[in-house]
Amino acid sequence: MTVKKEKQFFSEIINEAVDKITILNKQTTVEAKTRLDNLTKPVGSLGRLEDLAIQIAGITGTLNPDFTKKLIIVMAADHGVAEEGVSAYPKEVTPQMVYNFLSGGAGINVLARHAGADVVIVDIGIAADVSKAARAIANAKSLLIEKKITYGTTNMVKGQAMSRTHACDSVEIGIEIAREMISKGYGIIGTGDMGIANTTASSAIAAVVCGVDVEKVTGYGTGIDDKSFINKVRIIKKAIRLNKPDPKDGIDVLSKVGGFEIGGIAGVIIGCAALKVPVVIDGFISGAGALIAELIAPQCRKYMIASHSSVEKGHAIMLRKLKLRPLFNFNLRLGEGTGAAIGIGIADAAIKLMNEMATFGEAGVTQKSS
Amino acid sequence: MTVKKEKQFFSEIINEAVDKITILNKQTTVEAKTRLDNLTKPVGSLGRLEDLAIQIAGITGTLNPDFTKKLIIVMAADHGVAEEGVSAYPKEVTPQMVYNFLSGGAGINVLARHAGADVVIVDIGIAADVSKAARAIANAKSLLIEKKITYGTTNMVKGQAMSRTHACDSVEIGIEIAREMISKGYGIIGTGDMGIANTTASSAIAAVVCGVDVEKVTGYGTGIDDKSFINKVRIIKKAIRLNKPDPKDGIDVLSKVGGFEIGGIAGVIIGCAALKVPVVIDGFISGAGALIAELIAPQCRKYMIASHSSVEKGHAIMLRKLKLRPLFNFNLRLGEGTGAAIGIGIADAAIKLMNEMATFGEAGVTQKSS
Repeated sequence: MTVKKEKQFFSEIINEAVDKITILNKQTTVEAKTRLDNLTKPVGSLGRLEDLAIQIAGITGTLNPDFTKKLIIVMAADHGVAEEGVSAYPKEVTPQMVYNFLSGGAGINVLARHAGADVVIVDIGIAADVSKAARAIANAKSLLIEKKITYGTTNMVKGQAMSRTHACDSVEIGIEIAREMISKGYGIIGTGDMGIANTTASSAIAAVVCGVDVEKVTGYGTGIDDKSFINKVRIIKKAIRLNKPDPKDGIDVLSKVGGFEIGGIAGVIIGCAALKVPVVIDGFISGAGALIAELIAPQCRKYMIASHSSVEKGHAIMLRKLKLRPLFNFNLRLGEGTGAAIGIGIADAAIKLMNEMATFGEAGVTQKSS
Repeated sequence: MTVKKEKQFFSEIINEAVDKITILNKQTTVEAKTRLDNLTKPVGSLGRLEDLAIQIAGITGTLNPDFTKKLIIVMAADHGVAEEGVSAYPKEVTPQMVYNFLSGGAGINVLARHAGADVVIVDIGIAADVSKAARAIANAKSLLIEKKITYGTTNMVKGQAMSRTHACDSVEIGIEIAREMISKGYGIIGTGDMGIANTTASSAIAAVVCGVDVEKVTGYGTGIDDKSFINKVRIIKKAIRLNKPDPKDGIDVLSKVGGFEIGGIAGVIIGCAALKVPVVIDGFISGAGALIAELIAPQCRKYMIASHSSVEKGHAIMLRKLKLRPLFNFNLRLGEGTGAAIGIGIADAAIKLMNEMATFGEAGVTQKSS
């Protein structure tokens, strides 16, 4: 099985999804532009909201996609490298936060509810058994999907973070969850993450894929001190030196210095693109997932909507590499999909503008004289 | 009456409102910060959403203000200077757009609905009788408040735009409408405008109040060509030269180169500040209103939330002068309160985060180690 995957470069499920990704629908982008220009406002005066409406029309092949059901998929997993003291929080916080997501008390719960979006949490590699405690939560506010590959990654300074098979598995899980959720009627999906030490993996991915110094893409994560920061940079450099990831091979980078949740996010992006559903990218960790997705399937980039620019300094470099322009910068550094939830609200507003505004003709408003 | 107003500098209603404006509530800002720091997230990781929650706690004197009822007030009026060819649209578009607001087909209707906000339109000086046609609109989606001062301003290259009395009247109308709406339970208010040629008045105000060249604060409005732009700059310079507004006197600037809707917006801002209600400022025209409000009552600045940075190049200069940092930049240049509606949604989200997220204790999540 592993050998077969190696030969195919990706797995069957991944290849099949990648093959389905097309360019955006040219006709509906033109139709969207024409409609926007006929609405009762100066041409182009809704700026980026118009760009967004046009992009979504191109993605979905319709001017009126059904965004009644909106979703944030939070991929959760642990990182062996956490034992190197790269995070301000202990590893036990990953499952604790998963329970918080299920109970509805986390930032993502509040912001998803505000945007009218549901939340699903995926255990794709948490280093603890969460099933029992999760089941004990009465009236869970989010759905838990259990797809644990294994109990966290290997410490990447001691070897590669995961096998190539597991890397493919993580991407496949993301693709299949996206497919399942889209079949349930979700019309727009946002990515999110939870995983103590995952800024370390994401910085490593950014350094490798963007070809820049580790210092340029490493930040303070959840709030480490200067000493820990120096250690974090050292650890990332050591992991890259040891594992030698191939910057052209997304699965190789993911397996050597990535994380299960990052692979899962890459899969969600590819899965959305394959089924022509807009995917709203959260911050730094989701950006790492987007870099991996883009290496696997370059055409999926057009299906991405970058929600925000994060405090993590590597994020801007990721977005530049992906040629994505974030919608806003609120100095967020929480992850979980919090920025994506706000982004989904903005995308929803853009589509409503295109569909619910009156045209000059309908409203009897005089058009521009020149 | 006019003489009395002159002596008082402002009118009684304005003075009374101004006197009511206090500094923000220090205790609730501290309580808000403490609560935010105890929520299940790294300290400060929600960035500007936390700043916003703290500001609103300071404005309202509570951590849990009631934002169930949200409102956009769209001030509509005409400008005599429109006859100088400074706009891409004819003056008749002002009443036409008012009917569109009432029918629910304008950008502001869609974005307000998206944010869960109501819309009221104020005829504070439209150069047409709108009552009859407005009443004929069945199932109106917004409320029309008729407070017409007169049929548009005087062409400011031929004399001052309005009398000092009328300038005070426009501010008073804004104050009183804010008060009335707040008494109806609106907990957060956004400003909006409609008025063909009102970027011309706003640029004039910006040049005078910010003390910069007209060219630096004049843009293309709804989309004029280069020739019209040169004319627009010339007209604004001529109006300033002729009327010599006093940059320290908000009512003087308003009366000489302003507009009724701009005075109305200034009044809404002062009225909100007087009653400790956060006021979300839209773009360039609302920014001109904010400059006037700040000249009349400098302490009202702390009650303002700048929603966005507009395409109009003078807007950034206004925001700098007001020491306000906009939440986002979507290249909007529509006005109507469209940016403010999005800003209200963000403010709402910030307050929900502060109130609905679980604390570390409640969720049983381990806090940062250091």
